[in-house]
Amino acid sequence: MALPTSGQLGARQARVRQRLEVPSLDALVVTCATNIRYLSNHIGSSGVLVLTRDTVHLLVDFRYREAVQMLQQSRSACPGLVVHDVPASYDDALLQCLGDIGASTVGFEAAHVSVARHEWWRRAAEVRRPVIAFRPTDRAIEEARLIKDASEVATLRDAAVRLTPVAASVFEATRAGKSERAVVVALESAIRQAGYERLAFDTIVASGPHAALPHHRAGDRMLAEGDLVVLDFGGVLDGYCSDLTRTVSIGPPSFEARRLYTAVYDAQQAAIASIRPGVESAAVDAAARDVLQARGLGEAFGHGTGHGLGLDIHEEPRITRPRADVASVPLVPGMVFTIEPGAYVPGFGGVRIEDDVLVTETGCEVLTTVSRELLTL
Amino acid sequence: MALPTSGQLGARQARVRQRLEVPSLDALVVTCATNIRYLSNHIGSSGVLVLTRDTVHLLVDFRYREAVQMLQQSRSACPGLVVHDVPASYDDALLQCLGDIGASTVGFEAAHVSVARHEWWRRAAEVRRPVIAFRPTDRAIEEARLIKDASEVATLRDAAVRLTPVAASVFEATRAGKSERAVVVALESAIRQAGYERLAFDTIVASGPHAALPHHRAGDRMLAEGDLVVLDFGGVLDGYCSDLTRTVSIGPPSFEARRLYTAVYDAQQAAIASIRPGVESAAVDAAARDVLQARGLGEAFGHGTGHGLGLDIHEEPRITRPRADVASVPLVPGMVFTIEPGAYVPGFGGVRIEDDVLVTETGCEVLTTVSRELLTL
Repeated sequence: MALPTSGQLGARQARVRQRLEVPSLDALVVTCATNIRYLSNHIGSSGVLVLTRDTVHLLVDFRYREAVQMLQQSRSACPGLVVHDVPASYDDALLQCLGDIGASTVGFEAAHVSVARHEWWRRAAEVRRPVIAFRPTDRAIEEARLIKDASEVATLRDAAVRLTPVAASVFEATRAGKSERAVVVALESAIRQAGYERLAFDTIVASGPHAALPHHRAGDRMLAEGDLVVLDFGGVLDGYCSDLTRTVSIGPPSFEARRLYTAVYDAQQAAIASIRPGVESAAVDAAARDVLQARGLGEAFGHGTGHGLGLDIHEEPRITRPRADVASVPLVPGMVFTIEPGAYVPGFGGVRIEDDVLVTETGCEVLTTVSRELLTL
Repeated sequence: MALPTSGQLGARQARVRQRLEVPSLDALVVTCATNIRYLSNHIGSSGVLVLTRDTVHLLVDFRYREAVQMLQQSRSACPGLVVHDVPASYDDALLQCLGDIGASTVGFEAAHVSVARHEWWRRAAEVRRPVIAFRPTDRAIEEARLIKDASEVATLRDAAVRLTPVAASVFEATRAGKSERAVVVALESAIRQAGYERLAFDTIVASGPHAALPHHRAGDRMLAEGDLVVLDFGGVLDGYCSDLTRTVSIGPPSFEARRLYTAVYDAQQAAIASIRPGVESAAVDAAARDVLQARGLGEAFGHGTGHGLGLDIHEEPRITRPRADVASVPLVPGMVFTIEPGAYVPGFGGVRIEDDVLVTETGCEVLTTVSRELLTL
């Protein structure tokens, strides 16, 4: 496991403290599991972290006690860590911890705490620790995660490159007469063989008319001559996600299939060519969208052009049209995201081509290394 | 796919309406993906459902449009469904929908809506639809899901039984000299072969000292003579989860290993024997815990005895000691949950034995069908 070192964790914690202007907060309660991992290297489905000016309090239950001890004896130990045992309820233990450290102004992640949980905290504090006031914070850790550090770039690059042998296995299994599900079985075994710890998401194998459904999973349909097949898959390596889509043709592609493929291919090329520091994320989306619109496929491309990639399979930045809930952001070196335009024609099928890219000082590096030409199988 | 029929969906919707005393609410906004699936058969990572007295409004984006149309032409169509297209932001579309249907008192799932999202809704309504007041609701759909209907019981039974051939493949692959990861590869391929659509959770293969870590995943460690190996795995069939743990011995078990195994085995038997309608969930936990405590293993059993199983891998009821955040509930026929006591000894190893059970009129049915005797491999 190539976990981030103690030094890297310390730098991340410092960035978050700076962003929060922690002097105005006594503590930040972190409840999002990937954010906890980002700051501490603790991996678990449960856990609460409390970041203060100089300490990282980690609340974990019995199941993780041993694992945290092992972590703290390694070169990836979390600096400034104090472990608190959670005998029963995490929220109970959190209130106890906040009381013990004498916190009064306490930030929390408003996007990751439910209304019910927040209400429980508020009421319990009223009774037991009336000095505590909870303050919502917005994307404090997500903003730090937006720019990948050296450890993250190395892992994301490795995670992307390993999809090349996986794709070769998948293409081998993608043949007329095989079911969509059989392709998934071959793919998942290849993901493991390549050293990933798990799938990054439920694999999509969408053939023929199913290829018009951007989020079709995989079913009993048999691949047939003339099908376009959309294959969308990825693996998680040391916590970091990779994500690739290729569309292949079973037997020689029809004129219409070729036209669709070329349009999406050109749209992807245009988007990738537009990436460099300072360019707006919305402009990258527009670069792809303009190509498809010019070919009469504007309506056929109903989703965004890409999404950030890291500890989560979908994270910031979003490469989409500006929307009420998603602001456009200027690109910065160290951002990693997918570029995945598509075109979907109900009743006929669809095409999507997806690669993972890293923004560099001068443009971008395409991390995934599978050929983008239309493959006939 | 054995999806619930339109009639079954209608009955579920009626139960939730009754529970909510919907007359006092104009609409219930459902944002939890498994709750949306439960009420409508819509499967997707995005979507918002609005349940009113007589209608089910489903908000979906471009990616799911075709799939919903196909669903509505089948015998599993959602009764009373009105589909709303989401061109950009779900929250935007939700506010529009609530305005169009003239709702003013609007319930939402307080456990599934973040503080940030709720705040956005509140502010946007203030400006655009000041008549709307949002009211938190607690477990309206979770309470309905607690008692499985005929379709769910049939699927859960099928999901549990199919673990028997999977376990046989896994035992075949669990041998001295193989890595934990190699066992996972064999297991995942067997899960697919058995017809599951995906893993229910990240598989646990914990060997030797790792077996003392209840939530260890799987690593490069090679299995060796004298190891106890905890194998915890499950698959998802038509949306429903199965979950099984067996602990095996590589080579003849030591005296200590045998003692540990027998204690956990007896604890599990005691818990299963205690299950019948009217018994408290906390009493089932106590039945297992008492056995382990009597053998001096009270401290070694740090987690709960079981969890509900259904569309989610962890749902209600929780079979634990009563806690601030988890009430004990009387068992009712139709509940499905795991029984999984364990004992973990740092430095030595651990044992966990887990089966899935259905509460019946007179006791319980163990749904999983793998032998519970200690296997020497």
